[in-house]
Amino acid sequence: MAGSDPLPSWNEGSTKQSILDFVGGVTTAGGPHLVKPEERIAVFDNDGTLWSEQPFYFQFAFVLDRMKAMAPQHPEWKDNPLFAAVLNNDLKTVAAGGIKGLLELATVTHAGMTTDEFSKIVEDWIASAKHPKFNRPYTDVIFQPMLELLVYLRANGFKTFIVSGGGIEFMRVFAEKVYGIPPEQVIGSSIVTKFEMVDGVPVLTRLPQLNFMDDNVGKPVGINMHIGRRPIAAFGNSDGDLQMLQWTAGCAGSSLALLVRHTDSVREFAYDTGMMGKLEVALTEAAAKGWTVVDMKNDWNRVFAFEA
Amino acid sequence: MAGSDPLPSWNEGSTKQSILDFVGGVTTAGGPHLVKPEERIAVFDNDGTLWSEQPFYFQFAFVLDRMKAMAPQHPEWKDNPLFAAVLNNDLKTVAAGGIKGLLELATVTHAGMTTDEFSKIVEDWIASAKHPKFNRPYTDVIFQPMLELLVYLRANGFKTFIVSGGGIEFMRVFAEKVYGIPPEQVIGSSIVTKFEMVDGVPVLTRLPQLNFMDDNVGKPVGINMHIGRRPIAAFGNSDGDLQMLQWTAGCAGSSLALLVRHTDSVREFAYDTGMMGKLEVALTEAAAKGWTVVDMKNDWNRVFAFEA
Repeated sequence: MAGSDPLPSWNEGSTKQSILDFVGGVTTAGGPHLVKPEERIAVFDNDGTLWSEQPFYFQFAFVLDRMKAMAPQHPEWKDNPLFAAVLNNDLKTVAAGGIKGLLELATVTHAGMTTDEFSKIVEDWIASAKHPKFNRPYTDVIFQPMLELLVYLRANGFKTFIVSGGGIEFMRVFAEKVYGIPPEQVIGSSIVTKFEMVDGVPVLTRLPQLNFMDDNVGKPVGINMHIGRRPIAAFGNSDGDLQMLQWTAGCAGSSLALLVRHTDSVREFAYDTGMMGKLEVALTEAAAKGWTVVDMKNDWNRVFAFEA
Repeated sequence: MAGSDPLPSWNEGSTKQSILDFVGGVTTAGGPHLVKPEERIAVFDNDGTLWSEQPFYFQFAFVLDRMKAMAPQHPEWKDNPLFAAVLNNDLKTVAAGGIKGLLELATVTHAGMTTDEFSKIVEDWIASAKHPKFNRPYTDVIFQPMLELLVYLRANGFKTFIVSGGGIEFMRVFAEKVYGIPPEQVIGSSIVTKFEMVDGVPVLTRLPQLNFMDDNVGKPVGINMHIGRRPIAAFGNSDGDLQMLQWTAGCAGSSLALLVRHTDSVREFAYDTGMMGKLEVALTEAAAKGWTVVDMKNDWNRVFAFEA
């Protein structure tokens, strides 16, 4: 309604104002910064931007749970140091395996079934798994201020997309229900799928082979591939989002590039560098370019909807 | 308006009726075939389905024109038999090079510039090139009945996508203006792009390397990658569309799988097998599965908007 605050979980101040000013500018008819509705593209990182990413990426929790569920059918996993580390909750060894190790684990748990089967597995997991700190479904651990931002942008003619290093088919299972973002507006990393007729029934089978890594320099590439337009607003929280923010900030007209900085150890977590991902180069660039940086502790009066 | 014909260029008969019945079914509230609006996904092949593909794919005409425009800077092309054939209008030799030869030509003309530069090149070409038979811009040589179908589907809550073997960044230049299909709903073949900062400016550079072939078994894969939902309506005209039609027809509820058959040598062209692409296996499958087959000559009272 007129006069009501579209971003009630955001405290008044320069951060909130930079969002309101940007949206006001690109939507003011006859103004110097007006952008046509079809060109109002906003892209959001997911992990650490729309929902938490601590103590580790939620999709990694899915991988761990899947490995444990599948282990009885794979006695040979005991002899693989990486797989054994997962089964023994030795996350230090798992982390030491780096991105190569994580991809190996992802492959084992994400391939070897049809796309429909995989969606069902994720759906069941999402419905039952709980976040270790908050003891709630992972889909509750989403940032209320960012949800308000998604709604506010859409109300102003924006099309909102997720552009995440996370798995595209993992996120699509819940993105529409949780964020109001339909599958066709979710961009992420993927493995190769293969079309085949099995007993006269067409299926897409997921193969143990990386197709696309939607992170760092991959993000502008993924944006161009899926959207084919340059965003005018981008939201991230780590160095993996740097190139997406550069690509967006480099558009011809008015733009908004925003970083969420995790500064609240009580309500969420306080870190720049976590177990996975860090905020370092992008923070330096934000300061140099005048990008908006959210200080979670001070800029958000509410972090999660479930707070008292 | 109520009572008006949404498909005036379609003659009354079983073909038109199959479309009306399908759309009526999936949009009838409380009916047994109702499909939620967000799941009303319709996918259209482009070449031969939305616009003509004779005497050869329009994008191939672009390739030929580009090669000729670039030739003065490439005296060495004279010594390459395939390239020399293009410059000498020896299309028989070019065709004999098969898909491998076509990809080589596409690479030479489609890579080595930024995405923005490529779009500008296509835009300029589209604005000036003429179809050899109709002596009109290629974007005039689109099927009026299919345009009406796009509008009719969208008016009934469908989201319409292009799923073509053609180049994704080629089609995006004109798809919104000509078909009302925005860039983010265009799926096609692609080459690899690379993000880089050039003198502080972020660019996406097009590399001479195939990224994805959106044809045959690639079409369901591309649909899953970009849309993440299974279509309930698919429109094609050749064997390259077979798997897309199978994937669509295999969905859980009501579906429409349709082939456009080119039977009108006067108003357009009459062929099942052209210089590029053929309609053979898909036609057999259509008969076996009861898919809708458009007989252009008899089902369409108008082919192009520019007809008298």
